[in-house]
Amino acid sequence: MKQLTMEETAQWLMQCEDAYILIHQSPDGDCVGAGYALAEMLCQMGKRASVHCNDPIPNRYQFMLPEQQTQTEFAPQCIITVDVADPKLLGKLEGTLGKAVDLCIDHHNSNVEYAANCYLDGGASATCEILYALAKLLPVTITRHIAECLYTGIATDTGCFQYDNVSALTHHTAAALMECYPEGRYCWINRKMFAVKSFGRLKLEQLLIDHLESYLDGKCILICITQAFLQQFEVDEAELEGIAGFPLQVEGVEIGITMKEKEPGKFLISMRSADQVDVSAICRTLGGGGHLKASGCFLTGTADKVRKMLLDAAAKGLEAYR
Amino acid sequence: MKQLTMEETAQWLMQCEDAYILIHQSPDGDCVGAGYALAEMLCQMGKRASVHCNDPIPNRYQFMLPEQQTQTEFAPQCIITVDVADPKLLGKLEGTLGKAVDLCIDHHNSNVEYAANCYLDGGASATCEILYALAKLLPVTITRHIAECLYTGIATDTGCFQYDNVSALTHHTAAALMECYPEGRYCWINRKMFAVKSFGRLKLEQLLIDHLESYLDGKCILICITQAFLQQFEVDEAELEGIAGFPLQVEGVEIGITMKEKEPGKFLISMRSADQVDVSAICRTLGGGGHLKASGCFLTGTADKVRKMLLDAAAKGLEAYR
Repeated sequence: MKQLTMEETAQWLMQCEDAYILIHQSPDGDCVGAGYALAEMLCQMGKRASVHCNDPIPNRYQFMLPEQQTQTEFAPQCIITVDVADPKLLGKLEGTLGKAVDLCIDHHNSNVEYAANCYLDGGASATCEILYALAKLLPVTITRHIAECLYTGIATDTGCFQYDNVSALTHHTAAALMECYPEGRYCWINRKMFAVKSFGRLKLEQLLIDHLESYLDGKCILICITQAFLQQFEVDEAELEGIAGFPLQVEGVEIGITMKEKEPGKFLISMRSADQVDVSAICRTLGGGGHLKASGCFLTGTADKVRKMLLDAAAKGLEAYR
Repeated sequence: MKQLTMEETAQWLMQCEDAYILIHQSPDGDCVGAGYALAEMLCQMGKRASVHCNDPIPNRYQFMLPEQQTQTEFAPQCIITVDVADPKLLGKLEGTLGKAVDLCIDHHNSNVEYAANCYLDGGASATCEILYALAKLLPVTITRHIAECLYTGIATDTGCFQYDNVSALTHHTAAALMECYPEGRYCWINRKMFAVKSFGRLKLEQLLIDHLESYLDGKCILICITQAFLQQFEVDEAELEGIAGFPLQVEGVEIGITMKEKEPGKFLISMRSADQVDVSAICRTLGGGGHLKASGCFLTGTADKVRKMLLDAAAKGLEAYR
């Protein structure tokens, strides 16, 4: 794998031919924004480009799809991934397109270096922050579509400029996007991404307040969402998106854990840190990983067994900060 | 009243002597941040300055008070208000110190022009955004305390960069503060201001979800918090802070209204707009006012009578956008 500089990456993008852009499964605002913004940049440079994902793009991100999707199918000359730390995250694309990735653009320090060429900046708040810097080196115009895609990626990966991955450059980038496109729907995007909840989601949150489990002197708050829970309370799974941050709103919490039973006895775990604790270290002891303050893992077993594994690991993780 | 330019305001501040800085009642992050940041700037320039408010500074903003409050009492040579649109908002200080305000620094377009000199910028997201621009013209250092005060004011008045009062300059200002003081506790402030909730507040929100009243085809969501409600559910009034935004999270809402019964039959009304509707115009028809998207008024009568007045006014306000 070759680590490229920003300038080399821009050169690479200018010289590449028709591209497939792959984004990670369970797509979020950053990979969708980065994927479609990059596709438009490549198209502006006269290449064909399309975005591919294991999963459908959720409704909340559909506004980032290009207005005209008249593009015919084409055979790619190169494969680019954006915001994909590990080819495992490509889902069903891993074994096919994911086997020969020519360029990876990413901001996850946990990137497993799977691509022939890589531009990795773990200090960037979002892959979209990197893409704006790249755009400035490319012969492309920041259209409203590109501005809104890049803004959305930055806003969603930073909790609307709330988390500690926000740097001065993050704010300068947001400012620059607003200057490029003052009429962009930034406030509308923020409201859609952060403020508005469906009535189903409000009801779910109302319910979850009664199901917050407090452990380790209140420093660990856990939510366990089993299949039985979903059935009993008739929760639509779509309402669960982004619920991993929910336990962190409790005063005094250090580690927030969300257990989601995807199949009977198979739990997708999300772990969030309020401030000091490195949850990626905790998740690594459980076979997972991620960011310092937002990580995850997969665990199998009964809810009680999985809960015990998590609390043991969380207790050890907290020890390190005493 | 004389409207000063930014440069004239900076000159005025350099030339003034010992100052009392007045902030509005029910203090928020912007007036507290602006007040204490300005006080430190004046102190750095060799003057004495102190901040005065009708109400105690709430616990959540106490971190903006200076660490050392060894200052002795002094007689002011001038009176400055920050973030105060109307001397009425000074509470018990209106009839005394508020009668001879020498300089007003504010970002409310609704400012009633009560001061001898005024720097008003309705385009600024927060009074703290103006104060950063002033600081650059003054012989002062942006200390950690000033950086954190100004950041807090900007963050709280914009819902953490979420609302449409955010401009490119707002983001540039946040970036500049981070550059002046990279070690500032910006993420800690955001978590404290936006993410963390007491258990009492969580329980209140859980309760309010069952008390959301939907009117005008779901375009108006109203919450009525009477004295009886507070007693029945044993709600601590401190938990109500910022609750005015609560109705706006419902999908499809245009106008969110919160009625708070302060005394029997006396309601403090907060009105919020999701996107298009000018709620300051609606509130003006009810004797109040404020910002386009965040306004308020006082109404007296039974809850039912007040609710009817509000819904009639809201219906007319919505008409204008059909």
